[in-house]
Amino acid sequence: MNDEVIDKTAADEDGFALDNRTVSAVLLAVAAGDGARLGELLEPMHSADIADLLEQVDSGRRREILLLAPWHFDGEVLSELDETLREEVIAFLPPEVLAEAVRDLDSDDVVDLIEDLEPPQQEAILDALEDADRVAVEQALGYPEYSAGRLMQREVVRAPEHWTVGETIDHMRANKKTLPDQFYHVIVVDPGIRPVGYVTLGKLLSAKRSVPLTDILEDSFRTIPVTQPGAEVAYLFKQYHLISAPVVDEGGRLVGVITIDDAMNVLDEEHEEDYLRLAGVGDTSLSDKVLTTAKGRFPWLMVNLVTANVAASVISQFEATIQQIVLLAVLMPIVASMGGNAGTQSLAVAVRALATRDLTASNTWRVVRREALVGVLNGLAFGAMMGAVVALWFGEPMIGAVIAVALLLTLIGAAVGGVLIPIALERAGVDPAVASGPFVTTITDIVGFFVFLGIATMVLL
Amino acid sequence: MNDEVIDKTAADEDGFALDNRTVSAVLLAVAAGDGARLGELLEPMHSADIADLLEQVDSGRRREILLLAPWHFDGEVLSELDETLREEVIAFLPPEVLAEAVRDLDSDDVVDLIEDLEPPQQEAILDALEDADRVAVEQALGYPEYSAGRLMQREVVRAPEHWTVGETIDHMRANKKTLPDQFYHVIVVDPGIRPVGYVTLGKLLSAKRSVPLTDILEDSFRTIPVTQPGAEVAYLFKQYHLISAPVVDEGGRLVGVITIDDAMNVLDEEHEEDYLRLAGVGDTSLSDKVLTTAKGRFPWLMVNLVTANVAASVISQFEATIQQIVLLAVLMPIVASMGGNAGTQSLAVAVRALATRDLTASNTWRVVRREALVGVLNGLAFGAMMGAVVALWFGEPMIGAVIAVALLLTLIGAAVGGVLIPIALERAGVDPAVASGPFVTTITDIVGFFVFLGIATMVLL
Repeated sequence: MNDEVIDKTAADEDGFALDNRTVSAVLLAVAAGDGARLGELLEPMHSADIADLLEQVDSGRRREILLLAPWHFDGEVLSELDETLREEVIAFLPPEVLAEAVRDLDSDDVVDLIEDLEPPQQEAILDALEDADRVAVEQALGYPEYSAGRLMQREVVRAPEHWTVGETIDHMRANKKTLPDQFYHVIVVDPGIRPVGYVTLGKLLSAKRSVPLTDILEDSFRTIPVTQPGAEVAYLFKQYHLISAPVVDEGGRLVGVITIDDAMNVLDEEHEEDYLRLAGVGDTSLSDKVLTTAKGRFPWLMVNLVTANVAASVISQFEATIQQIVLLAVLMPIVASMGGNAGTQSLAVAVRALATRDLTASNTWRVVRREALVGVLNGLAFGAMMGAVVALWFGEPMIGAVIAVALLLTLIGAAVGGVLIPIALERAGVDPAVASGPFVTTITDIVGFFVFLGIATMVLL
Repeated sequence: MNDEVIDKTAADEDGFALDNRTVSAVLLAVAAGDGARLGELLEPMHSADIADLLEQVDSGRRREILLLAPWHFDGEVLSELDETLREEVIAFLPPEVLAEAVRDLDSDDVVDLIEDLEPPQQEAILDALEDADRVAVEQALGYPEYSAGRLMQREVVRAPEHWTVGETIDHMRANKKTLPDQFYHVIVVDPGIRPVGYVTLGKLLSAKRSVPLTDILEDSFRTIPVTQPGAEVAYLFKQYHLISAPVVDEGGRLVGVITIDDAMNVLDEEHEEDYLRLAGVGDTSLSDKVLTTAKGRFPWLMVNLVTANVAASVISQFEATIQQIVLLAVLMPIVASMGGNAGTQSLAVAVRALATRDLTASNTWRVVRREALVGVLNGLAFGAMMGAVVALWFGEPMIGAVIAVALLLTLIGAAVGGVLIPIALERAGVDPAVASGPFVTTITDIVGFFVFLGIATMVLL
């Protein structure tokens, strides 16, 4: 009883169930080896929060928690768990707990759970499934990764096009046991099991029993090819406010259904990936081991080391100039870093606009022109400011003029480059979100150093 | 007919309706002043695609399209339209078209449509609404921006707790006209109109008429306070796989309902905002005017100018050293840019982990320690590589040793700083996603220059 009170208060405070007090209480129970108390604490928790709990503690504690109260870790919790931890947790769980855990899941959740596991663990879970479920999961695994075929659930509610509302409801009442937990539409199919439209449950409930299904079909209706990439599926759901959509094979036959909660997860993952990629980080998780994390960060830092060396070699061309006017060495990082920031700004806007399809072939040149003009405006503003600082503060009007011009040119170049690079990558079939942030900053470093030191050499020596 | 064929083919190609061919055909019709042809092209298009079309063309074309076929721009299209364009489009539309356009919208869509408009335009739209709708919209506008009260729709389907399945269905059939377009649950309320649970439409359809609603309530059920921020609402939907959730006032009374499609939009907007903020860009849109865009990019560039000047003043402390060894000026940007990239990597991971609540008080120190270790590993790797390059290529073993040590220290500092800065901001109540990317890169610039030139001065002179 006491725990429930704690839980309620916590939820009242900020609306989230997993607060620090709960985590502390769990750790206390684990330290005391008190399985009963741990069970009491886990009982009222949502599976998503139990998964978060496992993600927040270290590996040793995780093992103790699993050993003390294995029965609380059902399929739902495993589904919610970060992929990098699943193998570890599954290895800790007794086989009979694991078998029980996966049997209640919908086919799409089992697929999501096992697609990244090693073959022996995959096999162990497949063996725990009933034959029909096993076939469904194996078929789904046959579709390409990140495709609609992996996202969809095979449990669909469908009705032939000649049925009435009454016939449909009677059928559902008679087959109550086989209905999915959550569904929002009845998919109307032709004799070849090809979807021809769908009816919302709200319409089905409010229409008279005698009304034919074809009279209350929704106006807009989209099917999703089973091979369509997940990112496009998420885009379609968002763009057209879909709640669920039937998935069809090459012959247009109904093979499953994708619901908005799955699309929302894909959208969330795509965004997270793009965010981390802008920062030069690949797929990553706080639960990764140190060595895995370091390896994941390595490639972009390596790219950066190479391009930074190119930038350094640009500077080395101007060693004689710097030797004579050391102030140039002091000021050159200002030009480079302003260029890097302005380039990243343009790049981020362009990458997002490409992802949301606001930037297309029909408005490319208008967008590039606009970015160039923005570069001119900010280049003039910051060039004037920095030029004035150098002229007045350092008493070097000529160097002030040089840095003003260099900033103007660098900011224009950065703005145009920031938008052209992702467009060029997209045209070349490369995801512009991948080769992004660190790439543009080092390009602008090179441009900034070259322009600044080049103009300085021409004008000042 | 011909247009539909074009549209179908386009949709088959990549699953999206608004392709370049459609845009070209629209522009051709506009150039010819052919309103009938334009209408034919717009007719089969989804309102989201019509909105995208308006966003992609320039302001002059936009006006011509609106004048040629005003009746195609209904409330749905206005809702889909980017906020920065709404005022412009609304100003172009004849008042009677506008009035007609908003009358069909649900209250949450009207709120979303007008909340950012100027008062005279707001007034014009409110005047077009029926009295009951107007009151609903004005009440919603009374809730804080970005709160659940703004997101929710007031049209709810509710039933008293003593009703049976049959009574509920009969009630819905009798009140068919007032049912929302899309709904997924019937909310069960006590006599004080406080929600006590909800029933999915699937259960309602498959249960016998005599079953009491309270027998088929869903296990998990969450209400959302009307003042809860939108970002937290989106988090709850994603974390707990909600499809719709009742919104309650301070007294716990039902005032509306939020559905997953609204939560998905908020999630998408939050992500977009965080992405752009990592790049130092505020709220922005491709449809903004050049001056608006330049102003939006200005603040972070200004912050960067100041911090870059601080970095420059660090370098200026070492002018004498650089004068003697110009190679240091050539190499110093390498240290700074490696630090900047490593810092941004840690920062991005930390900001995301804070947003998904994977990084909490209970694991802060473990995460910081892990980042520091990652910094040590990559610092050793890149320090050794760069040290070898300088020693062997430039024939300067001592400078090689200096850059190796400087890289190691800078990468450790960047990794730790990248995770501590967002944590500190979060504790201080500032959104860590706001003060992010450019901040960390300039901090690491300062650290990198200081460490490299400082060690060089101590060791080499």
